[in-house]
Amino acid sequence: MNTQPKTALVVSAHSADFVWRAGGAIALYAARGWDMHIVCLSFGERGESAKLWRQPGMEMTTVKQEREKEARKAAGILGARTIHFMDVGDYPMRVNDDVLFALADLYRELKPEFVLTHSLKDPYNFDHPMATHIAQEARIVAQAHGHHPEKPVIGAPPVFLFEPHQPEQCEWKPEVLLDISDVWQTKREAMESMAAQEHLWEYYTRVALQRGVQASRNSDLKIKYAEGYQRIFPQVTAQFS
Amino acid sequence: MNTQPKTALVVSAHSADFVWRAGGAIALYAARGWDMHIVCLSFGERGESAKLWRQPGMEMTTVKQEREKEARKAAGILGARTIHFMDVGDYPMRVNDDVLFALADLYRELKPEFVLTHSLKDPYNFDHPMATHIAQEARIVAQAHGHHPEKPVIGAPPVFLFEPHQPEQCEWKPEVLLDISDVWQTKREAMESMAAQEHLWEYYTRVALQRGVQASRNSDLKIKYAEGYQRIFPQVTAQFS
Amino acid sequence: MNTQPKTALVVSAHSADFVWRAGGAIALYAARGWDMHIVCLSFGERGESAKLWRQPGMEMTTVKQEREKEARKAAGILGARTIHFMDVGDYPMRVNDDVLFALADLYRELKPEFVLTHSLKDPYNFDHPMATHIAQEARIVAQAHGHHPEKPVIGAPPVFLFEPHQPEQCEWKPEVLLDISDVWQTKREAMESMAAQEHLWEYYTRVALQRGVQASRNSDLKIKYAEGYQRIFPQVTAQFS
Amino acid sequence: MNTQPKTALVVSAHSADFVWRAGGAIALYAARGWDMHIVCLSFGERGESAKLWRQPGMEMTTVKQEREKEARKAAGILGARTIHFMDVGDYPMRVNDDVLFALADLYRELKPEFVLTHSLKDPYNFDHPMATHIAQEARIVAQAHGHHPEKPVIGAPPVFLFEPHQPEQCEWKPEVLLDISDVWQTKREAMESMAAQEHLWEYYTRVALQRGVQASRNSDLKIKYAEGYQRIFPQVTAQFS
Amino acid sequence: MNTQPKTALVVSAHSADFVWRAGGAIALYAARGWDMHIVCLSFGERGESAKLWRQPGMEMTTVKQEREKEARKAAGILGARTIHFMDVGDYPMRVNDDVLFALADLYRELKPEFVLTHSLKDPYNFDHPMATHIAQEARIVAQAHGHHPEKPVIGAPPVFLFEPHQPEQCEWKPEVLLDISDVWQTKREAMESMAAQEHLWEYYTRVALQRGVQASRNSDLKIKYAEGYQRIFPQVTAQFS
Amino acid sequence: MNTQPKTALVVSAHSADFVWRAGGAIALYAARGWDMHIVCLSFGERGESAKLWRQPGMEMTTVKQEREKEARKAAGILGARTIHFMDVGDYPMRVNDDVLFALADLYRELKPEFVLTHSLKDPYNFDHPMATHIAQEARIVAQAHGHHPEKPVIGAPPVFLFEPHQPEQCEWKPEVLLDISDVWQTKREAMESMAAQEHLWEYYTRVALQRGVQASRNSDLKIKYAEGYQRIFPQVTAQFS
Repeated sequence: MNTQPKTALVVSAHSADFVWRAGGAIALYAARGWDMHIVCLSFGERGESAKLWRQPGMEMTTVKQEREKEARKAAGILGARTIHFMDVGDYPMRVNDDVLFALADLYRELKPEFVLTHSLKDPYNFDHPMATHIAQEARIVAQAHGHHPEKPVIGAPPVFLFEPHQPEQCEWKPEVLLDISDVWQTKREAMESMAAQEHLWEYYTRVALQRGVQASRNSDLKIKYAEGYQRIFPQVTAQFS
Repeated sequence: MNTQPKTALVVSAHSADFVWRAGGAIALYAARGWDMHIVCLSFGERGESAKLWRQPGMEMTTVKQEREKEARKAAGILGARTIHFMDVGDYPMRVNDDVLFALADLYRELKPEFVLTHSLKDPYNFDHPMATHIAQEARIVAQAHGHHPEKPVIGAPPVFLFEPHQPEQCEWKPEVLLDISDVWQTKREAMESMAAQEHLWEYYTRVALQRGVQASRNSDLKIKYAEGYQRIFPQVTAQFS
Repeated sequence: MNTQPKTALVVSAHSADFVWRAGGAIALYAARGWDMHIVCLSFGERGESAKLWRQPGMEMTTVKQEREKEARKAAGILGARTIHFMDVGDYPMRVNDDVLFALADLYRELKPEFVLTHSLKDPYNFDHPMATHIAQEARIVAQAHGHHPEKPVIGAPPVFLFEPHQPEQCEWKPEVLLDISDVWQTKREAMESMAAQEHLWEYYTRVALQRGVQASRNSDLKIKYAEGYQRIFPQVTAQFS
Repeated sequence: MNTQPKTALVVSAHSADFVWRAGGAIALYAARGWDMHIVCLSFGERGESAKLWRQPGMEMTTVKQEREKEARKAAGILGARTIHFMDVGDYPMRVNDDVLFALADLYRELKPEFVLTHSLKDPYNFDHPMATHIAQEARIVAQAHGHHPEKPVIGAPPVFLFEPHQPEQCEWKPEVLLDISDVWQTKREAMESMAAQEHLWEYYTRVALQRGVQASRNSDLKIKYAEGYQRIFPQVTAQFS
Repeated sequence: MNTQPKTALVVSAHSADFVWRAGGAIALYAARGWDMHIVCLSFGERGESAKLWRQPGMEMTTVKQEREKEARKAAGILGARTIHFMDVGDYPMRVNDDVLFALADLYRELKPEFVLTHSLKDPYNFDHPMATHIAQEARIVAQAHGHHPEKPVIGAPPVFLFEPHQPEQCEWKPEVLLDISDVWQTKREAMESMAAQEHLWEYYTRVALQRGVQASRNSDLKIKYAEGYQRIFPQVTAQFS
Repeated sequence: MNTQPKTALVVSAHSADFVWRAGGAIALYAARGWDMHIVCLSFGERGESAKLWRQPGMEMTTVKQEREKEARKAAGILGARTIHFMDVGDYPMRVNDDVLFALADLYRELKPEFVLTHSLKDPYNFDHPMATHIAQEARIVAQAHGHHPEKPVIGAPPVFLFEPHQPEQCEWKPEVLLDISDVWQTKREAMESMAAQEHLWEYYTRVALQRGVQASRNSDLKIKYAEGYQRIFPQVTAQFS
């Protein structure tokens, strides 16, 4: 009898992206007993740590440490099983093949049921689509029989793209509205643990409320808070949902 | 205790479209005990009955009767609960507001859990997107509190668009791949009951096989036959699927 | 010396649309001394008056009167010069050529500097793109020298499309972010005068806040509240802005 | 032995559109011995006759006569076999089913090898996409075995969309660049016969020159003048070209 | 008198892609006496050799040898003049500028009349669009007068994109349907020589049949087997086809 | 009191692109007292200097010198403040992170009010979208607080994309039509200083005339010459324009 918990993988460009954009999904599945694994390609140390850099004498090492601390705390609140920091740098993000292969190995090890990552485009932030690209490419490598042929390949876990900051400009469209009402307080708490980006707390609370109204409008349910996701691949199913 | 079976509605431009394009979905849900209801806006008497018209002395009345007979037979094989013929004419299809309101009333009466209809565009066949338009507009009217205010409005049943004959030219994309393997023989039998369009049997068998291969590729399942559908509205859900 | 105030035209499908979607623009330009003119093609009596219809014994005439009263009040708060009710009906909206020509005549009479109307698509609401279509077509007719050749034609006023309820599903994109911070209280007051749609007050306050944050991010300004608009025609200008 | 010349059909919204947009194609094929047939749905009497309307006391009948005279002259210069005037009116254009069926009958009678008409969209001019729609729908009707079952149906003539005035705004894209250098002087002469729209002569000469440069750039040929066309249907061929 | 046969170039990401996707075109032109040249950027050794890797003790060198052997055999059956193996690796494919310049030199040497390669996007397989990118970029470099200025530049050979495995997900659209009925048996034989990917034989036979039906529907011809291609550049021509 | 002139930045892939595509904007703003700064990533020495390479014995160094000389002359005529040559090479263009950071530093130093660069796509020329990509990425890096934290970050200058050679194929759309009539003679003079590309003088004169006609059509102004630009980001404004 297989008692192994199911797993999912979140690939985040910077150390806080997973909180704003997928915190609800992580908390929801963690609460159901899944092992949720988060990969942060960078700490967001250059591009998303303005508040820290405004402190006199701030050093890169300190910024990274602070960001890691915050991200670990948020991941803990959300109930994630692990959080990995790839430290590839940000603004600009550059991902070499060692990182790609490490991520492919992680796919092989975790065998995630689904993957969450960024939008395909973002004219405001080139690190985000870069993270998506690497998340997709690592998935493809992990499917290849000739990559580490001694280890079993993965199947075809669906990939869901979480909401960027300015969705229309990123050509992103909510194709899935995930009801996160049950775990909203957890997501809000995780957001509040990101002290360096306080200005985003209210912004993403409003995003959750708007997507919640839309989720209600697209169903016969009363949904207060939701997260939007776009699909890359078609849904394979035996029933319409 | 509500023992009423669940319902779904299929809006078909011509009397055979539902067989080729949604026969699997109809059979699948009928087999699960759902009440599947089919609306044929026309009999396809002018545009999709070439074989009948090749018979000398053929009359419009006869064509319609033959088409209706075939469609009823196919609906029966698939296990549909009802099949309605609106007889609005085809090539060109013109739908007046009486038909629209009749369809809206049907929405109110059936309260379908989901709706299946044609693609949004089709440069080969203007009746198809016309049927989609009317299926969407009737749904909107049925949601309006001021339309027959004495009767309860419907909620927001999702609409799925079945596969057109030449998908890329119709800007149609399979966003849902529905596994119809369990009911394939039923769909094939229903197709074979459409004697007037024999040339389509093999075509749509190949479509089902191709979508089946693709369904397998987009999942970890072995799926032999599938039908593709596009969504109009976002999926509202509490779990990724 | 021309002391005539400048004018603009807002074409609204239902009697409240102009408040949620363009209330800021109307108030902003009214405050600058422009004559703002609003056309409501319908009262939204069937599709957007759920609260009224829930009252026992409600009649269509009463609904229309209530909606007109509210809309007039909101228009007054926003400082609009006129509000016209075309009473073409809604859900479904059907616009005949008399209405088209009346609107074309209004274009000729007002000579608006710009036009505000709905998005080009909306799968949730077919009245909205219908209103856009008629607003565009009336503009084209008013430009034709052979239409009432005795009256001067209009030029080419730009058309801006205001934000639909679910922007991504409507393929709508904010190409102009209009700073409405100075008139926000007026817009909020106008929204609150729409008693029948109380559930939308907070929704559209959040929309204004989100577009405000985005306006700030796309400029070096601090903008609290904004409205988004999409363009149909290219901006003609002697300076980038 | 079939000595019947081949035919093609041009569907033009207004009486001059075929000159600016397809004059080269008409002249080219006429010079090759084809029978080129032109249908003008309207005379462009309201929307494209500004110069005539500026004359004092101008009457609609006179405008139509002048426009017809010019169009006949241009068609003659280009070498067209016939030119039909449907007189459906313009700005706005409204096409009823009688006109649709008349056009379908023309398809059946002419059996055109290809069809030329307007772009699918045009925010500046709603008559143009209306003409395209009717040209497409009549083609579909003419393909239906049940429409006048006693007359043979047509096959599937390809449809090419000629260049609108502001191509990018019309979402039109040149997919075919037709070398019209050999007949350029004929097209220029035909354009100059449209006295009412003199301002367009130079405009469309420049269009032809630009498309000529682009045709050269996309081939190894020296092409001076070209016309651009978009396809609706895929090219069916036994060789790449 | 130039007795040199005409040439065309096929750029294939993996050693078998050219068979499934462009085998008909290669056989067709080879049968007409053209010199058809194939470039395989990789052997598909990691990502498309699952059957080989399932054999115990399999080595990378063996896989490459087997794949090369099969590809050479298929190219021979199709009648290709040459097949080049660039051995750049796959899953992930990485192409450095040496390979780019080698490919540009090949363009200069062969002066192909047309080029066949992959689709612009493919979310299932990043090697495919990479191959397309390199095929396009090498073509551009070969057009530059300052690249090896001593050698003559090439003109502007059109590029046709062959059909990906899941066309709609790759945003690929058949703009050219090439009749390959005459060479179908040759293509089928070539496909069957790819022993490692037996599961694709039937899949691509069905693709050819479906495209054949569609080719017939888009013409007045009876076409049994076809291959679909998308264009990158406009067709330059003196006649509609 | 700040008497510093305002600045703008033009990022040009090759040394002449800025002349054809943005010469009007540069001259217009220079005439208004702005400091216009031009960055040429390459000299266009390989791909856009055919005329020079046709001279026997031509050397790369000479080509670069000639191109630089011409570009400096044109920049002078247009009234640009500075012109920078990055000399990264062309056909293919490859931009390393040193160049990226140098460009980011330039953003920080100049604090441009707006940025002009190439289209997002160009199937004829991969250097152009590469230049756009680097112009965008450098802007993002210059916004990051952690990049040279001791220097102040830039705000969010809008980016305008100038017209490519074959706009429709590049999916480029004119969203801004800039009236350059006042500086047309200056632009023409600058174009004529590009002796190596004489064939483009008339081409881009016609482009300016066509865009001028379109600018007039989209406004009530008489505009003779215009340049078209596409936006990446929404316009932030307090008034419609």
